[in-house]
Amino acid sequence: MVRPVDLPTPSLLLDLPVLCNNLATMGRRMAEHGIALRPHLKTAKSAEVAMLATEGQSGGITVSTVAEALAFAGHGFKDITYAVGIVPGKLEPLAPLLAKGVKITLLTDNAAMARAVTDKAAALGVVFDVMLEIDTGGHRAGVLPDSAELLEVGRILHEGPGTRLAGVLTHAGHSYHCRSRDEIKTVAWAEREGLVHAAERLRAAGLPCPVVSAGSTPTAMCGEDYSGITEMRPGVYMFMDVHQLLLGVCSAQDLALSVLATVIGHNRPADKLLIDAGALALSKDVSANELMADIGYGVVCDAATARPIANLFVTDVSQEHGMCAVTDDTLWDRLPVGSKVRIMPNHACITAACHEAYHVVDHGEVIDKWKRFGGW
Amino acid sequence: MVRPVDLPTPSLLLDLPVLCNNLATMGRRMAEHGIALRPHLKTAKSAEVAMLATEGQSGGITVSTVAEALAFAGHGFKDITYAVGIVPGKLEPLAPLLAKGVKITLLTDNAAMARAVTDKAAALGVVFDVMLEIDTGGHRAGVLPDSAELLEVGRILHEGPGTRLAGVLTHAGHSYHCRSRDEIKTVAWAEREGLVHAAERLRAAGLPCPVVSAGSTPTAMCGEDYSGITEMRPGVYMFMDVHQLLLGVCSAQDLALSVLATVIGHNRPADKLLIDAGALALSKDVSANELMADIGYGVVCDAATARPIANLFVTDVSQEHGMCAVTDDTLWDRLPVGSKVRIMPNHACITAACHEAYHVVDHGEVIDKWKRFGGW
Repeated sequence: MVRPVDLPTPSLLLDLPVLCNNLATMGRRMAEHGIALRPHLKTAKSAEVAMLATEGQSGGITVSTVAEALAFAGHGFKDITYAVGIVPGKLEPLAPLLAKGVKITLLTDNAAMARAVTDKAAALGVVFDVMLEIDTGGHRAGVLPDSAELLEVGRILHEGPGTRLAGVLTHAGHSYHCRSRDEIKTVAWAEREGLVHAAERLRAAGLPCPVVSAGSTPTAMCGEDYSGITEMRPGVYMFMDVHQLLLGVCSAQDLALSVLATVIGHNRPADKLLIDAGALALSKDVSANELMADIGYGVVCDAATARPIANLFVTDVSQEHGMCAVTDDTLWDRLPVGSKVRIMPNHACITAACHEAYHVVDHGEVIDKWKRFGGW
Repeated sequence: MVRPVDLPTPSLLLDLPVLCNNLATMGRRMAEHGIALRPHLKTAKSAEVAMLATEGQSGGITVSTVAEALAFAGHGFKDITYAVGIVPGKLEPLAPLLAKGVKITLLTDNAAMARAVTDKAAALGVVFDVMLEIDTGGHRAGVLPDSAELLEVGRILHEGPGTRLAGVLTHAGHSYHCRSRDEIKTVAWAEREGLVHAAERLRAAGLPCPVVSAGSTPTAMCGEDYSGITEMRPGVYMFMDVHQLLLGVCSAQDLALSVLATVIGHNRPADKLLIDAGALALSKDVSANELMADIGYGVVCDAATARPIANLFVTDVSQEHGMCAVTDDTLWDRLPVGSKVRIMPNHACITAACHEAYHVVDHGEVIDKWKRFGGW
C-alpha cells in the first residue's frame, strides 16, 4: 500500500471521494434546475476525470485549447465546445474531427471573425456550430446583450456557408472577484438576464438560438434562477480550491486537490519554514489573497489528514522553494526538516497545470496515477 | 521556410543569436574574473541549451530538481550541483548516478540534515559531495556566515561516512529586488563578503573548502570584485527577461525568449485587446511590476521585429486569455483580430516552464524545436 506521504515531492494529489462528491453535488444541482451540465475540462485536463464528470450527463464537454479538443476527441468524447474566441488559424487541426463524427462548437464575438471563420470552414469543406459570446458583466470578451453587433454577428453565423449559429454563451468570470455568496447571486442574476435577453433578441430577429450556455463555478453553485438557460459550463467545482472556499462556494472538506511537499529547511533567524514546492509546483497564482490577506500561495495542511495547520501559509515562493512564515514556535518540532505537508492551492486550475499527473488518493491510499494533457 | 508567425499559438520562441550572445557575454565576464561558470539550468531545462551554455567551460552545471539531474546526466553531463537543500528522501534516485561516474554535489544548511544525509548516503554505499549553504542576505535558506552552525554542519559533512564537505554556496536571490545597478553592486559585495568569510572560517577550523560558489544573474553581471569566489551559478542570463532589463542587467536586444500569441478579440467597449496567451502560456509572474508599475504579465511586441509596441502590456490574464488595455486607438487597425504579437515575459524561468519546447528562431526563421524537461 502506497500512502500519499510515501510519494516523491512535490506531487499533485487528487482525493477521489472528494472529487466524486463534488461531481455529484453539481450534477444534482443542475438536474434540479433542469439544465444540461457541460463540464469545463480546462481545470482537469484528464480523460479519467472527464469520464467521471460526464457520467449520467449528455457527454458534452467544454475545453479551452485546441490541444484539449484533440486529446478528448481521441478519448472518445463526441460533443466538444471550444470556449475561447476562435480565429481562422485554429480551424485546420479541428476540421478533421468533424469528419470523424465529433461535434466541435466554436465561439466568436465579432463580425470580422464570424465572416473569416465561416469562409475558412467552407474552404475546408466543413460546417462548424458557433456560439455567439455575450458579455454579461465580465468585460473580458463578448458582445453586449443590447448591442447591434449581436444581430449582425448572429446573422453572419447563421447565413455563412461554413457555420451554424448554435446559440449564445457567456462566462461570468467576474464572479471570482465577489466578496460573498450574496454578491455571487447578483452576478448569477445578471448573467442569466443578459444571456437570456441576447437569446430572445436573436429569436425575435428570426435567428435560431437553441443553446443558452452560462457558467462559472460560483454562479453554478449559488444562482437561484436559471430559467431560459439550457446548459452550464463550470470547471473548478470538480476540485474546488481555497479561492472557492473563501468565496463561500464550498466547504473545507470539498477541496480535492493538494500538493504534497517536503519540509526542506528551517530558517530560524528569519522565522521561515522552507518546502520544496515553489512557483513551479504551486504556480504564482495569489487570487485568494483578494479575500484573505496574507494567504500567499496556499494553505499548509497536515500531510496525512489534509487539515490546515493554524496560521501556516506559503507566504513567498521562488522557483523550487516555498517559504512559510512561522509565528508559532511549536511548529519547528511539529514539522521537522524531512517531514511532509500538503498545500491547498489558491486556484486549482493553475496549480494543476504545473503537474503532469494526478496521484489519485482514496481513503489514505494512492490507488492510481492519471495523466494530464498539456500544451496547446 | 517557417517564420515565427507561421507557428500555432501560443508558442515559445527562443532567438538563437541572442541566446549565443548572452552566453558569450557571461562566459567572457567570468573568464575575465578567473571564475568557473557553472550555469544554472533551471531556466532552460534543455539539453541543447545546456550544450551551448557549457561550451568552452568546465562542463559543470547547476540544477534545481532531481528530475533535471537525471535528465542532464542522461545527456552526458558529469558534474551536477543540485542547488536546493537536500533531504534524505531524495538520495535514492540520485545515488545510482554516482556509480555511473556522474559527480552529484548536494546542498544543506543544518546539522540534522547533514547527519541524516551522510548516514543515508553511507547506507546507499555512496559518498556525496555536499556544499554548505550560506545566507548572505537573501534570508531564504543557509546558515549565517558568523554562526556556530557553520562549523558544526561543516564538521558533520567532513567527518560523515557518506559525505565530503565540498565548499560553501550562496544565492543572492534578493538581487532581484534591487532598484538599480548600484544596489545590485552592493548586494554582490555583500554576497562575496559573507561567502568568503564563511569559507575562511571553515578553513581556519581545519575544514576543507575547495569550492566557493556564488551566483545570481544580477550579481554575476554587475559585481566588481569576486576575489575568493571560485565559481558562479547564474541561470536567467541565457534568456534575460523584462525584469532583468528593468534592473539594468541587460539591454532590450538581449531578450532571447518570447511567447508568440494571436489577437483573438477586440473588446472595444472595455478598451481591451485579447490574446490567446494567458496564465498558462505566460505564467502569473508579475515580478517586473516591482520596477515598473502596470507592466502586468509582459510587454507586447511586434511579432516580426520583436520590438515593443508603445504602451501595450498584458494587463490581466485568465487561464487562456491575455487582456491588453488599449490607450491608443490606432492599435485596433494595426493589430486586427487574427494578427500575431510576441510577449516578452517578466520572468523567463517561470514563463518557459509553461511550455514543452522552444521554437528556435535564427534571423527570422524557425530552424529547430528543442524539448524542455518538466516535473521533479
